[in-house]
Amino acid sequence: MSKFVYFFGKGKTDGNKDMRDTLGGKGANLAELANLEIDVPPGFTISTDVCRYYYKNNKSYPDGMKAEVEENLHKVEDVMGSKFGSSDNPLLISVRSGAAVSMPGMMDTVLNIGLNDSTVTGLVKKTNNERFVYDCYRRFVQMYGNVVLKVSHDEFEKILEEKKKERGAKLDTELSGDDMKEIVARYKRKVKEFTNKDFPDEPEEQLWGAISAVFESWDTERAISYRKLHKIPDDLGTALNVQAMVFGNTGESSATGVAFTRNAATGEKQRYGEYLVNAQGEDVVAGIRTPHPIKDLERDMPDIYRQLVSIFDNVERHYKDVQDMEFTIENGKLWMLQTRTGKRTAQAAIKIAVDMVEEGLIDKATAVSRVDPTQLDQILHKMFDPKAKKEVIASGLNASPGAAAGKVVFTSNDAIALHERGEPAVLVRIETSPDDVAGMAVSEGILTARGGMTSHAAVVARGMGKCCVAGCGALDIDYGKEELRVGPRTIKKGEFLSLNGTTGEVMLGRVETIDSEITRVVKGKIKPDESEIYQYYSKLLSWADEIRKLGVRTNADTFHDAKLARDFGAEGIGLARTEHMFFGEERLPVVQKMILAKDEKERQEAIDKLLPMQREDFKGILLAMDGLPVIIRLLDPPLHEFLPKYEELLVEFAEARRQDDSAKAERIDGMLTSVRRLKEFNPMLGHRGCRLGVTFPAIYKMQVQAIAEASCELKLEGHNPKPEIMVPLVGHVNELKVIKEYSLEVMNKVMEEKGVKLDFMIGTMIELPRAAITADEIASEAEFFSYGTNDLTQMTFGFSRDDIEEKFLPVYIDKKILPVNPFAILDRNGVGKLVEIGIKKGRETKHNLEVGICGEHGGEPSSVEFCHIVNMDYVSCSPYRVPIARLSAAHAALHNKK
Amino acid sequence: MSKFVYFFGKGKTDGNKDMRDTLGGKGANLAELANLEIDVPPGFTISTDVCRYYYKNNKSYPDGMKAEVEENLHKVEDVMGSKFGSSDNPLLISVRSGAAVSMPGMMDTVLNIGLNDSTVTGLVKKTNNERFVYDCYRRFVQMYGNVVLKVSHDEFEKILEEKKKERGAKLDTELSGDDMKEIVARYKRKVKEFTNKDFPDEPEEQLWGAISAVFESWDTERAISYRKLHKIPDDLGTALNVQAMVFGNTGESSATGVAFTRNAATGEKQRYGEYLVNAQGEDVVAGIRTPHPIKDLERDMPDIYRQLVSIFDNVERHYKDVQDMEFTIENGKLWMLQTRTGKRTAQAAIKIAVDMVEEGLIDKATAVSRVDPTQLDQILHKMFDPKAKKEVIASGLNASPGAAAGKVVFTSNDAIALHERGEPAVLVRIETSPDDVAGMAVSEGILTARGGMTSHAAVVARGMGKCCVAGCGALDIDYGKEELRVGPRTIKKGEFLSLNGTTGEVMLGRVETIDSEITRVVKGKIKPDESEIYQYYSKLLSWADEIRKLGVRTNADTFHDAKLARDFGAEGIGLARTEHMFFGEERLPVVQKMILAKDEKERQEAIDKLLPMQREDFKGILLAMDGLPVIIRLLDPPLHEFLPKYEELLVEFAEARRQDDSAKAERIDGMLTSVRRLKEFNPMLGHRGCRLGVTFPAIYKMQVQAIAEASCELKLEGHNPKPEIMVPLVGHVNELKVIKEYSLEVMNKVMEEKGVKLDFMIGTMIELPRAAITADEIASEAEFFSYGTNDLTQMTFGFSRDDIEEKFLPVYIDKKILPVNPFAILDRNGVGKLVEIGIKKGRETKHNLEVGICGEHGGEPSSVEFCHIVNMDYVSCSPYRVPIARLSAAHAALHNKK
Repeated sequence: MSKFVYFFGKGKTDGNKDMRDTLGGKGANLAELANLEIDVPPGFTISTDVCRYYYKNNKSYPDGMKAEVEENLHKVEDVMGSKFGSSDNPLLISVRSGAAVSMPGMMDTVLNIGLNDSTVTGLVKKTNNERFVYDCYRRFVQMYGNVVLKVSHDEFEKILEEKKKERGAKLDTELSGDDMKEIVARYKRKVKEFTNKDFPDEPEEQLWGAISAVFESWDTERAISYRKLHKIPDDLGTALNVQAMVFGNTGESSATGVAFTRNAATGEKQRYGEYLVNAQGEDVVAGIRTPHPIKDLERDMPDIYRQLVSIFDNVERHYKDVQDMEFTIENGKLWMLQTRTGKRTAQAAIKIAVDMVEEGLIDKATAVSRVDPTQLDQILHKMFDPKAKKEVIASGLNASPGAAAGKVVFTSNDAIALHERGEPAVLVRIETSPDDVAGMAVSEGILTARGGMTSHAAVVARGMGKCCVAGCGALDIDYGKEELRVGPRTIKKGEFLSLNGTTGEVMLGRVETIDSEITRVVKGKIKPDESEIYQYYSKLLSWADEIRKLGVRTNADTFHDAKLARDFGAEGIGLARTEHMFFGEERLPVVQKMILAKDEKERQEAIDKLLPMQREDFKGILLAMDGLPVIIRLLDPPLHEFLPKYEELLVEFAEARRQDDSAKAERIDGMLTSVRRLKEFNPMLGHRGCRLGVTFPAIYKMQVQAIAEASCELKLEGHNPKPEIMVPLVGHVNELKVIKEYSLEVMNKVMEEKGVKLDFMIGTMIELPRAAITADEIASEAEFFSYGTNDLTQMTFGFSRDDIEEKFLPVYIDKKILPVNPFAILDRNGVGKLVEIGIKKGRETKHNLEVGICGEHGGEPSSVEFCHIVNMDYVSCSPYRVPIARLSAAHAALHNKK
Repeated sequence: MSKFVYFFGKGKTDGNKDMRDTLGGKGANLAELANLEIDVPPGFTISTDVCRYYYKNNKSYPDGMKAEVEENLHKVEDVMGSKFGSSDNPLLISVRSGAAVSMPGMMDTVLNIGLNDSTVTGLVKKTNNERFVYDCYRRFVQMYGNVVLKVSHDEFEKILEEKKKERGAKLDTELSGDDMKEIVARYKRKVKEFTNKDFPDEPEEQLWGAISAVFESWDTERAISYRKLHKIPDDLGTALNVQAMVFGNTGESSATGVAFTRNAATGEKQRYGEYLVNAQGEDVVAGIRTPHPIKDLERDMPDIYRQLVSIFDNVERHYKDVQDMEFTIENGKLWMLQTRTGKRTAQAAIKIAVDMVEEGLIDKATAVSRVDPTQLDQILHKMFDPKAKKEVIASGLNASPGAAAGKVVFTSNDAIALHERGEPAVLVRIETSPDDVAGMAVSEGILTARGGMTSHAAVVARGMGKCCVAGCGALDIDYGKEELRVGPRTIKKGEFLSLNGTTGEVMLGRVETIDSEITRVVKGKIKPDESEIYQYYSKLLSWADEIRKLGVRTNADTFHDAKLARDFGAEGIGLARTEHMFFGEERLPVVQKMILAKDEKERQEAIDKLLPMQREDFKGILLAMDGLPVIIRLLDPPLHEFLPKYEELLVEFAEARRQDDSAKAERIDGMLTSVRRLKEFNPMLGHRGCRLGVTFPAIYKMQVQAIAEASCELKLEGHNPKPEIMVPLVGHVNELKVIKEYSLEVMNKVMEEKGVKLDFMIGTMIELPRAAITADEIASEAEFFSYGTNDLTQMTFGFSRDDIEEKFLPVYIDKKILPVNPFAILDRNGVGKLVEIGIKKGRETKHNLEVGICGEHGGEPSSVEFCHIVNMDYVSCSPYRVPIARLSAAHAALHNKK
């Protein structure tokens, strides 16, 4: 028979930290803490298997599970020396979720289970603190009423406020035990009013009600939305921890707190956290009262502080990673409530990883694996220009770094609405709750009036890599009027604010941004040794380079971009799009002349004008990548892309006729004829790519000549150009054959004329399904393959990216027909299979065939991992994504050891 | 050492009829005739290996080949008792091409080799016929001068005409031996004038010149064009036959002729052919003199006729197929020059095949394999309406059956030009030559003034299945004026003529056509037992049905088409396109209302109106196919296809504004907004197929409901409907899952309401590469697969059929980048590989998965063969192609025995 329930606490603990899949993160870590002989309130974990069973079996529990719960509850009673439901010496318990992957604040918790009119008296007797006990009771009824019985939070708050008014009290603490007793009674009446049932007094019933409710919270909209955002599978399920209650709110010798073993924002080796005296943990996390920094505890409770520090050090050393821990001090006794890996910013992740290697805690590979490649984007982000004019109107906690400017909104829905209009939002809230997650995800930044560094807003924003300023007490937020007051100033919904998450500054208007510190170092504007973060970054990336097997190239069309990419670590160009060079202001008219030429002579004249321009373009990128391979793709888009739009011409034509301007009408009509001739029903599937090279060889020949001349000239100047000529959209080997033949002729002719021998290759893109399927044939003519996974995704799915991304892809993601947008993350099952087939067949013909990717997937971590798995030689991505690709490639190598 | 040269004739013959690949058809058959102890002029065949060697090795011959030629030439001399180059008793020889696949009239021949001023006197002495000998000499110099030395035919004709004028002669036969002698001298001077060299007198030099020239003729433009038309590989090469000359032009006891052992136009068992007394074979084939029918020979040379008849019977029995034979009678001795399988019309092919089975000559399988499926089209073609008004202006030979109406043109180029403008051409020539083949291929019909049933025009037209009226002596054709005179009438280029190839009638204007005889039987307009051709056809097709493994269904959307297809032998519907039902005059406005609906209510109202219409549509096709499977595809095209075109609206809008009609402008503007919203860059890759079913389920639900209701009603009326619901454009199994789920709900609801249990399936098209690649996943939800190879070809190649067929596909075929249009013949290497992968994966998941094809390839013989090879269950094609598919499927089974 399988086991459903796992005990932890003094005595024999069933689990350990490696059992996350079964016990969830929280349960596994509680077991581990118990194994380390650290005091945790005893309890037990109901495994994730039960959750999966629950959802598969019409919300029922497996046979035998209830008996296991009972048995373990007795063990808890034994350790605590109290009894669940006893009116003499009652045990109170909590029920908390805990999935394998952390989803902070997303799911429900019920505390103080076991209280009723009978057990409450036992507790009063035991603690001699009636006020505390009835406060617990009040909290319990409120929480249970809300989480399990679905009565709105506000209903309870109203009653509380009412009572405070009656008593003329400002704070909860000013209310007496009797007041609380009275409140409990009113709460229960309210529950009856809403549910038509008495509040459940039976502790057993309370427990099972809480267990069901917490399991159910796995399936709430906000949890589903969080999982979608973080790509967590829905069928993972959560575990559930039932644990003895300890109280941080029994009086002045009690407290509750949260701490990180190092600074999660900057990475500094400095304990970092907050606590509240005479409070429960929820008060810290929810950000309702602003807590004290952890170091103040040394003064307030020096003994406890020493214990804590020792536990922090011990546990961090044990886990070899930063820990995020919760603790409660009950009447002078320290209980650790949980430990988990601390979430951190990119900057902190890098610094901590590098520091820990230097401390001998972890090795370089572990350090590399500790930094999430997608996070890197944060430190490559633009930041505010320190020289920009700015008007700081307030300061809060620098909860999550970054620079954000956007229009002020006060609700998640307004943020979403702005986002859908393509406008930037700054979400301003008194405090955030899980209901705000969707709005936070689409905002540029988040600003809260209350809450600390570990408040919901701060934790979630750091997880998302979003800028956040938290606990900015100077703000007076009026949701009703949709405005925000700071001193004499009023800022209305829709006005611009700028947030500096790195300093905590809140500024009026839209402050100018500049490159991030790392980008400025890369661009040579700061010396490397003047930037601490750059030094850490560069050390970590150098370790990643040692680990990765994949090369990293860049997609760049200009000297400037190529140079920047090289400075970011690119090892060549994977894709230079020559058509980008055709759009320049002085070039487009020449290109149009080429297309609209009446005869071959006119066409050749235009082509001859383009030749020197292209030659200079190519010299630029070849020079920037001197000594490294540079793949230049011959012209790809259909020719009509270089002409005015048909619809626009039609309108102009009608207008000219309306104005009786017959000369103009005639001219436009001529243009219309050409555009109509070139117009296509499905340009993506039309006369483009190598099809142009077959039908208009003169254009490709000019491009090859420009490449050859540029390379020869550079070589003669003492450089080492390594051009690779890439033919796009090949579907049949014969296309490549024809183009290769004349390209070689042109190359040889130029080399002979210049007396130079060049080191070059001719290869092809694999971007049509047929190219992948017949890669064995194509490899007989190609010296390299470069996967164009944008087009390959379009053809394999039959999706026109331009059309479907807004028309139905969102519906598809939403209805879970597709797990993700396949243009963002490579579809391994479909498109990926074609990629695999193509590589296998290509290398059957030419075993040393160079294979890379140049679609946008080349800079996306999961897709980079795929490229590693299928043995590509390199990935290529935009310059700013080069560091991300380097780190992703290292991760891929670490996660896929052969 | 390999053998290059093979002897045939009296004594030991080296080859036989099974050595076509090495000896070519002619050589193999000459050897076979010799083996049958039939008198053939002795000779030898130079193998196709030599031709391939020649082209691979810079036009040189393999070592040892010359010695073999000499050795075999001696054998010929021995058999004939004469000597090549001897001035006493000279042997004359011919050099003729002969490839493995017959290419009638495409390649060159040189006759009478060995004549010079010295041997000619020997020949005169031997034959005592100076005129005949100098006529031979004249013909030789003319032919050699033209074929080997490339002097234009016209130059020689001019000299001949000149001489005739000098002598006041009308026919060649009126010229004397001295005249011929004089002509030879003038011919030789003309050759020297053009080539700057003396005409070669050395027989050895003549022989090798002829051999080279004939090998070279493999590579002429016309031969290449013929091979492209008939899909003969270029690297097959030709063999070459060197043979002793015999003469049909030595006087009145000599003759030459051509005969088929049965009638090649009608299939009747009746010898059929023509001869000319005192003539060479070229005179018959070229159609220059109109010959006598073969039966006249019984009267003229009864003994020879008996010999011939016996040989015909003997050889046909030996080959078990109709033979096309050439013979020459030299001074009363009969020589057989060649035998080959006789080309025939579809009607003849069917009749002969069936007759031969009944005669016990061949078995049914052989009979089926004897009829080319593409040929069948001929007897399904439309024919002239006998009741139509027609004005017959002339009659010629019914050389190739069919009905053609088109504009008169006089050159091949004009025919091509008309064809390119999409207009029908009738090519009118005095006689045709291989240069006309390209023009014939694109004409509706061919009309010649000269030539018989075996003339170039007749043979080539029959091979192409083109209508041809030949030898219409009443025509006076004036190429210069581009007109044609018949009696008092003049018909200018561009006027319409109609040709009846079945009767030989030439008619003015455009005569109305009606269904073919077979179609009329199928449609019940003629009783089967009143149509001989139908009886033969239906017997042959029933044999094909016994042989084939593939089922044959049809693509049909209406009761009428479905019924016709069933009568043509379709075993169900493979594709009913529901969108065709949306375009009706009364429906389109409702469909537009559905698309442009302002809200759900309006949309549902429109959908509700469509429901009963669709139900009636489905009842119609289900009834026509009662008891057979009917695959109904849910809506496929993007919705904007049902709205007016954006460009047209733009123009209308501008027009309305120009007229200051603001009400109209506003209305159009509203429509424009909707059209703009639905407009797509690449509609082929856009919001269509099952993507509509996911985003607008109401439309698909209505269609499923209509299918369910139609089926239930039919069942209640005592019928047996078998609907199969097909979801188009599935790329991910989840799309199918979602649509299947709600479709099943609708089906079950209707079945419950009506109290009927239906026999139905839900399946999918496989038309996206991703569907093929993930067919194992898709098969878990699909009960059948139907390959949409039109779209699959588009996506796999990245070709938009609408755009590329006219823009660059012709260039691709021309430059041999693609062997054929992949939309016409399935690309086995690329698209076919995906089809194979899909079937394999699909059947891994569901081993009894029903798999078919419904793209246009389903009616094309080579593609049908592919479907057989990959083990599909059926093919589906348009009604008129059903017989072709049935026969193709039988051929596939015969050619691919497992």
